[in-house]
Amino acid sequence: MNEFDLIARLVETVAEARRDSSWGGHARIAVASGDDAAVTVPMGATATSVDSLVDGVHFRRQTAPLGSVGQKALAVALSDLAAMGAAPGEAYVQLGVPDDLDEAGCLELGEGLGQVAAEHDVSVLGGDVTRAPVLWLAITVVGHADSAEQLVRRAGASAGDLLAVTGELGGAAGGLLVLDRPELADAVGAEVADALRRRQLEPRPRIAAGRALAATGASAMIDLSDGLGGDAGHLAAASGVRLAIELERVPLQAGVRELAAAAEADAHDLAAGRGEDYELLVALPPERLEEASAEVAATGSTLTPIGAVDGGEGVVLRAADGSERKPEGFDQLRR
Amino acid sequence: MNEFDLIARLVETVAEARRDSSWGGHARIAVASGDDAAVTVPMGATATSVDSLVDGVHFRRQTAPLGSVGQKALAVALSDLAAMGAAPGEAYVQLGVPDDLDEAGCLELGEGLGQVAAEHDVSVLGGDVTRAPVLWLAITVVGHADSAEQLVRRAGASAGDLLAVTGELGGAAGGLLVLDRPELADAVGAEVADALRRRQLEPRPRIAAGRALAATGASAMIDLSDGLGGDAGHLAAASGVRLAIELERVPLQAGVRELAAAAEADAHDLAAGRGEDYELLVALPPERLEEASAEVAATGSTLTPIGAVDGGEGVVLRAADGSERKPEGFDQLRR
Repeated sequence: MNEFDLIARLVETVAEARRDSSWGGHARIAVASGDDAAVTVPMGATATSVDSLVDGVHFRRQTAPLGSVGQKALAVALSDLAAMGAAPGEAYVQLGVPDDLDEAGCLELGEGLGQVAAEHDVSVLGGDVTRAPVLWLAITVVGHADSAEQLVRRAGASAGDLLAVTGELGGAAGGLLVLDRPELADAVGAEVADALRRRQLEPRPRIAAGRALAATGASAMIDLSDGLGGDAGHLAAASGVRLAIELERVPLQAGVRELAAAAEADAHDLAAGRGEDYELLVALPPERLEEASAEVAATGSTLTPIGAVDGGEGVVLRAADGSERKPEGFDQLRR
Repeated sequence: MNEFDLIARLVETVAEARRDSSWGGHARIAVASGDDAAVTVPMGATATSVDSLVDGVHFRRQTAPLGSVGQKALAVALSDLAAMGAAPGEAYVQLGVPDDLDEAGCLELGEGLGQVAAEHDVSVLGGDVTRAPVLWLAITVVGHADSAEQLVRRAGASAGDLLAVTGELGGAAGGLLVLDRPELADAVGAEVADALRRRQLEPRPRIAAGRALAATGASAMIDLSDGLGGDAGHLAAASGVRLAIELERVPLQAGVRELAAAAEADAHDLAAGRGEDYELLVALPPERLEEASAEVAATGSTLTPIGAVDGGEGVVLRAADGSERKPEGFDQLRR
């Protein structure tokens, strides 16, 4: 099977997954795949983000099913659109395929991509498949909004804003612990351990929550890919403010506390120091909290206040005993 | 230097190359790099294409300077926009960086990218840099037109159209021959050999010619990345027509004929059977030829009629003696 066949089959596979959804085609799309370029006619503003995954760096083929690799690649890219409050539109998929990955493996990967595309109404309009010594995926996603002003940036938080987070944290780091040390599952039971593993392998972009937050007046927003501490640092730097986070208020996924105890780790380190939870960190005026919480709840998630924005700079993590520290590694992370 | 620093430095490097050009910023761009996503406000239609290069597959780090790898990666991606007749706008760069490629090497690569970006007025708005066992680049380019109808597809050629090609062919294949077998340079002389090598290492997207052809009524167009024979096949299949190409009329780059003789190869095989010339193959109504030729000449290139479109299917290559054959490997190439 040559490159052109494989691209065609991948596009078909993705399209089949989509046909099972309620999607019926988009007026925005003038030319889909099969030409030199895809053609769209966007209305308003577009948000574009790219994300790459490499075997051995972001996942391990030995432990991650290929379908989940495809899912994760697109989900992680879409998470950046969630952080802007954009509605997902189109995706483009570039794939480096090693000799030991056969056609069936590529299509399994494509099915995973297709599932996430179907779930979020994303049209995969183009791609490139090439030989490579190692499996890698490079995803481009394009989202839409009526105007650029409706999209929420990292810059925009100001002193007096509340800081809040969607969902629960620490699950992705907990899942990695369980994947690396399966005996730790005993500390939380099979069901909870499984949920933690899925959190690591199949992250879910908070698209609906992001749009709800954008619509209810978020001042600044970022998705938690590098960990709460590091990502809060990006938002603080972009906005020119200080973020003070009360660690006790950070919502932890079920099992994270028990798992941390069994692994002799700090539960808040799993939540604040590690990444890949792909929840949203948002700054918003206090008077918007009630409405924003209700709108996020309507998307099936939660919004939890975890701190405040003030006029300093950087990030401070405040423990229950009143002690304060900077996020680990924060000084190395600048953007 | 961590990922965030490297992205920032790369963006700076690309931006510096751009500042030397006459570019002064685009009203279309609302949020450039440094946020979760880039935000643009496109007017009219957008054309989006992706292209990947992998060390050992599309280039060889031992023989290709890193600057030229950066140049080629962006140029090849832009060639797809040229084939649509789109005006280049934005680019996004994903990079897999092996341990033995240091910061200086990455920036050299970025300078090459920046040069091509400057030349074609492209804004590099985002990127992702990740560790990888091998150097790879995954480029996304976005071009623009006032409307989707102004963009030229592969489908659209009809019986009675003329077939023409921009510039000269065979140079990229000739350059590869000279790079692989330096002794062949004697057959053409140092200057011509150097031009052939540059044709292989530093392809130039025919952006201006593509836009001129779109504006003067091209029916269908494709860029020559896989070779005239194969790419003609893509256009024929998309349009549902047959393309008859007169091999004697195919314009050859200086030195290709002599080099082919020295290498005991067929000059027309270098032009029609190999790829990477990145010229444009275009179908157009005969009455548009004169104006189209003049407009393409005004961009510094040439337009040469090489055949005709008729109502059959596939591609036929006709030699001077009247014998006909199908392009080699064409049956394996479907899109």
